[in-house]
Amino acid sequence: MSNTASTNKFTPPRIALTPGEPAGIGPDLALLCASKPNGARTICFADPELIRNRAGQLGLDIEIVEVSGAGEYDDTASGVIHVVPIGTAVPSRPGQLDARNARYVLNCLDAAMDSCLAGSADALVTGPVQKSIINEAGIPFSGHTEYLAERLGVPVPVMMLVAGTFRVALVTTHLPLRKVATAVTKPRLNAVLDVLEHDLKRRFGIAEPRLCVCGLNPHAGEDGYLGTEEAEVIRPAVQARREQGWSITGPVPADTAFTASNRADFDTIVAMYHDQGLTALKAVGFGDAVNVTLGLPFIRTSVDHGTALALAGTGKAHAGSLCAAIELAATLTRTRIYDACT
Amino acid sequence: MSNTASTNKFTPPRIALTPGEPAGIGPDLALLCASKPNGARTICFADPELIRNRAGQLGLDIEIVEVSGAGEYDDTASGVIHVVPIGTAVPSRPGQLDARNARYVLNCLDAAMDSCLAGSADALVTGPVQKSIINEAGIPFSGHTEYLAERLGVPVPVMMLVAGTFRVALVTTHLPLRKVATAVTKPRLNAVLDVLEHDLKRRFGIAEPRLCVCGLNPHAGEDGYLGTEEAEVIRPAVQARREQGWSITGPVPADTAFTASNRADFDTIVAMYHDQGLTALKAVGFGDAVNVTLGLPFIRTSVDHGTALALAGTGKAHAGSLCAAIELAATLTRTRIYDACT
Repeated sequence: MSNTASTNKFTPPRIALTPGEPAGIGPDLALLCASKPNGARTICFADPELIRNRAGQLGLDIEIVEVSGAGEYDDTASGVIHVVPIGTAVPSRPGQLDARNARYVLNCLDAAMDSCLAGSADALVTGPVQKSIINEAGIPFSGHTEYLAERLGVPVPVMMLVAGTFRVALVTTHLPLRKVATAVTKPRLNAVLDVLEHDLKRRFGIAEPRLCVCGLNPHAGEDGYLGTEEAEVIRPAVQARREQGWSITGPVPADTAFTASNRADFDTIVAMYHDQGLTALKAVGFGDAVNVTLGLPFIRTSVDHGTALALAGTGKAHAGSLCAAIELAATLTRTRIYDACT
Repeated sequence: MSNTASTNKFTPPRIALTPGEPAGIGPDLALLCASKPNGARTICFADPELIRNRAGQLGLDIEIVEVSGAGEYDDTASGVIHVVPIGTAVPSRPGQLDARNARYVLNCLDAAMDSCLAGSADALVTGPVQKSIINEAGIPFSGHTEYLAERLGVPVPVMMLVAGTFRVALVTTHLPLRKVATAVTKPRLNAVLDVLEHDLKRRFGIAEPRLCVCGLNPHAGEDGYLGTEEAEVIRPAVQARREQGWSITGPVPADTAFTASNRADFDTIVAMYHDQGLTALKAVGFGDAVNVTLGLPFIRTSVDHGTALALAGTGKAHAGSLCAAIELAATLTRTRIYDACT
């Protein structure tokens, strides 16, 4: 099967899906998304036995079709889930974390990533992982975004959350709060803005992205009375971009940056850190929001929630965010192609 | 006129209103709120000349009635604004900050505060001030909340924002971000929780407040991998309260603390710092949100926005937040009284 099939816009793109933590709701969500059409050909990188058991627990009548790679997707099959088999170390039970399966989670991710790099899949979609159990297994892991970037040699990946047309990009991601102010540097901010501008144009097809950049401190530093990073770091970076012709505003006070009128006025709001931007986005769009990593050599989207261990195998998990992640990945794949054709 | 009039629940409470920065939209909003009934008797502490000029600029036909104190409110008058006269240092023009009027802003606040302490007003409502110009005038000022607390000898005031039944309380307020982690201490958190519980019962009339407490770090510290303050400070404080029978949950990851279902489940969500809580609240309820200071000897509410200098005198400012602040203050005044009667 040719790996250029997806360059035909009438052929659904191939999505490499990693369900994430086996004891969490990821396998449930993968099955739920597989059970209805979503404009993509989804190939799951997971343990087929885990997927089969979870389908049984959920009472879902879905056939498990094992394939050796994303390129082997069988377009004629229906009511099936395509799985590239990767074995867990020990059988996983819903809700019960086991550090021995931490490596399995990363094995799935590595295989799916390789599939995207090889061009047999068009995009990567990831389910929720349990960071603490991976670290407990002795593997330093602060998040998908950072892991992918390191493996792919990408110096500055950019984490963005998307809920419809409400997009929030983060300058720093998974850092203890006391380390944030020092991490917001001119080189970092400049690199994030460059990736953001590039990917909004290239991946999202927005010809002239309108950006709004938050301050770091309350009230954007209140003219220096509540902090100096706005004057020293953020304002000069924004000003320089504006002089280059970018449509960019800031630093603005974060507390009023995410209001409905601002969301309508800007294509992306740039937050300086995790809880500055994501509290607002999830207050408005939780459940349907999608995490996107910008700056990678391929498209990668993810759910906006955690492993919800207590819901695994119960049938109570909602697949809204994973389905949205698959749909957005499929859309971005097409957008990229249109962009390249114009 | 008796200052016990407001203890009769059929008599509207007396609200001492400070419009704040004279060059901002505060005077406009005071006039707009005065021009329609709102269940309160509002007395404005301001320069009558400023109010008269602004009414002219806005084309509002409102009579300025000067009174010597909040107790002198004339119930029979209509189409008027009651003003306790306090002179600006120099005439103020819309949009043009002047450090010489910084002291005026605080004089208004002091007089209104004294009126509440004396019992001639039942609550204080404040318009937006420009913190930077007050500091520029050589007066250290980080916010209304802190100023009132210092003047009133209140060690731990608690800043809360309210949008309908969505309430967010802050453990720290106007601090540069790099100082936040160190400021979130056990004594501070305990004191904030005590004030919050007390005022939710006493002022808001909620018999058994349900509280949700955010972590400080992303993902509430991810079991220590993204910060230790949750384990060292927040979890022990929450646990101790729960053992005392409080209905309290946390530390929870802040990014999912403010979702619609959580807002329905809790009476107040406790954020560790300004932009963790207020970005979410204003994303959902900006324009109708009210700032409330808990822990003071009287009720104090405020707008949720700034001075909007560019809109002053133009007729484009919306009075939604100030009107909501007056209405909430009036409601809380009555709630307190009912509570005291039961």
